[in-house]
Amino acid sequence: MSGEDAPAQQQNAVDQKQETKPAEEPKAEPPKTESAPAGTAEAAATPAATTDKAPEEETFTYRALVLTGYGGYDKVKLQVKKGKPALKAGEVLVRVKACGLNFADLMARQGLYDRLPSPPVTPGMECSGVVEAVGDEVTDRKVGDKVMVLNRYGLWQDVAAVPASHTFLIPDGMTFEEAAALPVNYITAYMMLFDFGNLRPNQSVLVHSAAGGVGIAATQLCKTVKDVTVFGTASASKHETISSGGVTHPIDYRTKDYVEEVRKISPKGLDIILDPLGGSDTHKAYNLLKPMGKLITYGTANMLAGQKKNLLAVAKNWYHQFSIHTLSLIQGNKSVCGFHLGYLDGETELITQAMNTILDLYKQGKVKPRIDSTWHLEQVGEAMRKMQERNNIGKVILTTEPMPEEEKKEETKKEDKKEDKKKDDKKKEDKKKDDGKKEEKKEEKKKEEPKKEEKKEEEKKEEAKKEEK
Amino acid sequence: MSGEDAPAQQQNAVDQKQETKPAEEPKAEPPKTESAPAGTAEAAATPAATTDKAPEEETFTYRALVLTGYGGYDKVKLQVKKGKPALKAGEVLVRVKACGLNFADLMARQGLYDRLPSPPVTPGMECSGVVEAVGDEVTDRKVGDKVMVLNRYGLWQDVAAVPASHTFLIPDGMTFEEAAALPVNYITAYMMLFDFGNLRPNQSVLVHSAAGGVGIAATQLCKTVKDVTVFGTASASKHETISSGGVTHPIDYRTKDYVEEVRKISPKGLDIILDPLGGSDTHKAYNLLKPMGKLITYGTANMLAGQKKNLLAVAKNWYHQFSIHTLSLIQGNKSVCGFHLGYLDGETELITQAMNTILDLYKQGKVKPRIDSTWHLEQVGEAMRKMQERNNIGKVILTTEPMPEEEKKEETKKEDKKEDKKKDDKKKEDKKKDDGKKEEKKEEKKKEEPKKEEKKEEEKKEEAKKEEK
Repeated sequence: MSGEDAPAQQQNAVDQKQETKPAEEPKAEPPKTESAPAGTAEAAATPAATTDKAPEEETFTYRALVLTGYGGYDKVKLQVKKGKPALKAGEVLVRVKACGLNFADLMARQGLYDRLPSPPVTPGMECSGVVEAVGDEVTDRKVGDKVMVLNRYGLWQDVAAVPASHTFLIPDGMTFEEAAALPVNYITAYMMLFDFGNLRPNQSVLVHSAAGGVGIAATQLCKTVKDVTVFGTASASKHETISSGGVTHPIDYRTKDYVEEVRKISPKGLDIILDPLGGSDTHKAYNLLKPMGKLITYGTANMLAGQKKNLLAVAKNWYHQFSIHTLSLIQGNKSVCGFHLGYLDGETELITQAMNTILDLYKQGKVKPRIDSTWHLEQVGEAMRKMQERNNIGKVILTTEPMPEEEKKEETKKEDKKEDKKKDDKKKEDKKKDDGKKEEKKEEKKKEEPKKEEKKEEEKKEEAKKEEK
Repeated sequence: MSGEDAPAQQQNAVDQKQETKPAEEPKAEPPKTESAPAGTAEAAATPAATTDKAPEEETFTYRALVLTGYGGYDKVKLQVKKGKPALKAGEVLVRVKACGLNFADLMARQGLYDRLPSPPVTPGMECSGVVEAVGDEVTDRKVGDKVMVLNRYGLWQDVAAVPASHTFLIPDGMTFEEAAALPVNYITAYMMLFDFGNLRPNQSVLVHSAAGGVGIAATQLCKTVKDVTVFGTASASKHETISSGGVTHPIDYRTKDYVEEVRKISPKGLDIILDPLGGSDTHKAYNLLKPMGKLITYGTANMLAGQKKNLLAVAKNWYHQFSIHTLSLIQGNKSVCGFHLGYLDGETELITQAMNTILDLYKQGKVKPRIDSTWHLEQVGEAMRKMQERNNIGKVILTTEPMPEEEKKEETKKEDKKEDKKKDDKKKEDKKKDDGKKEEKKEEKKKEEPKKEEKKEEEKKEEAKKEEK
């Protein structure tokens, strides 16, 4: 997660693209790779070396998902890149097996996440795989090591060159899918609960989106502390799963007011609230804190509405953004914290400490990532849709396993269907707009009603006056 | 610290005052006690019982400090009250030996602390003494127990009726002065460092007013954790004392910019900052936090300027009051907390837990309150002045020991001197105002300077043009 490295790599990428373009142009490259050099830091380092490298290095190709511009699911495209990523001192080359999807990736696609360089760029903050080559000065990793990786971006591809300090050895018995599901969600949940939250026995915690990646990690981590009560929000269909996972009180936020539900059970409020929503939900969370309570906000999921940037949702989130005065904090004895792993650049020691504790808990059988579904790189759009529409229970994973030809055909059929779905969506959106207009009309009507009432009142007064006369 | 009790008692006090007034009036009470019934909850409960109580109860008198109105040091007066405070179920009567002074008492005198009822009222949030009587339903305290007491107000008097749950047994070897110095400062420091702050080995902490009551408590508590670095601000004359008390890096905030001094030693910033100042110092503290750092603000000492309410200081504090958006917290991975023991009403369990840990540390010799000076009740004004002018190192204590007649005479002489001092203060304040005006003039001059510079530039251009021609 060294952010200081990342921009430098990006810079190199652009420089080298300019330098090497004349040499590249004569070659007949497949059109898919056109944007590759600028696409990722790792890929970018290669072309300069193409002239005097061994044939294997020259002919090396790999697939990478590339965000080609901000927008909908179709903006992430699978491309083939050429040239083996060169290793800098301290780096290892990882043959990627599985990648994790995160909310930040969805935000990034809409242009709402400033830790990702401008497109074209390869997203992906976490993956698992096998070390394929080791750069100079790397002493604690060797070829063949199974590792999980945490990086600012650039991991959704077949191979990735990353600092060895961003890799963690996968313990025995953990699958590649589990390993790709672990870093972001568990480190996030761990640091929120045990660093800012200072979770102790007998306390109460509210976990929003309790069936999501962070939600499941947080629930499992809560259960490692004695007698912690977990309130978890999720739609009703997921309640059985989250209850068996450790949520004491599941709340269906779609049909019930979660604040009321919590107050019924815990009238004094809560010790810790994890808030991935932002906007007005942060206000609610603050008011729901006990004295000495901690509100930890770690996202603005309320900004995400639909697959493209929804300006109304963004503006609403800004408008309702929570701002707090210290005098209010003092009088309430409250704490407000903000967390985002993507901004913890260079805090290798903190992250390694957290990861070691999490892996110990895994070995003791106390935590275990739950995989919702695994998708081929070709299916990244569908994978993102599943997560964004909150249809997942647990982690959504991408695998680099080649997609069988049969499935690819199936996929093409689906694509056609998706096109139909898009049309449907469009229709639905238009319908919503129409409904919106209808609503507006209704509102106007409502406003007119009181006027009528007023008129009636006036008429009555007139009549009364007449009677008096 | 049960706030739910306090307003109710206050309410009772008013009610009973009204009920009992006719019965009281015929008696020739000394004028000093006129305001007593409304003055404290404990005293208020008595008059109703005077008619049918035993003679000892009737003739019982005690001294109490009473805040008679908002203002300077002279607003706290020593009065004699009549009638033994009646005990409610769950209460004990404590013969007070020593009382602690706190910043909140100074704020209260100026009308800047809303946890104290309106004057006339007896201030005092902490004291030590001996249990003299035990009410119904009290099982864990007996007559003769040496206790320290924490209450919302009303402890600066010879006897006080308080809930038994607000008392803590004094361990062997602890003096009454130490016991009166312990509750507010050590619970405050403990909860800030170990609940909100989650202090761990190798971390760094900034303690403002490191020679004050909370400052010394916080320093001692920091030293109970391995390899914690303490930065402490205090005027240079106090550096030797705070260094030997555990401050790693003393900083003279009067001659140096503490932010710069901290950055020199710890360029990345700090893990925990305890901020009793408020206003612009809270902004500085926020910027001085490391990622995952915690800012804990627990006062607005910057509001206190002079012995009477300084509207300019108050306004300045409000103007510079720190307000934070959650998006800033998220991007910084920071935490902002507010703490004030006076608002932790009814959190008996939390407070008892903290107190038990602190007393264990005392028994192990790891913490020990440092007494700056002890004053008779008659000297409360001087005691408050010493604290407000930051001339103390450690805790300022009041003792209920009768003042020897000789000292009283001395005191009268001092009073005369104080009058002179007041005149001096007035002169100083006037001088300050003049200095302020001078400063303003200087500022204006500065503004004029750039204008001159601009003119010079213009002249140069003119000359250049001429030369071109």
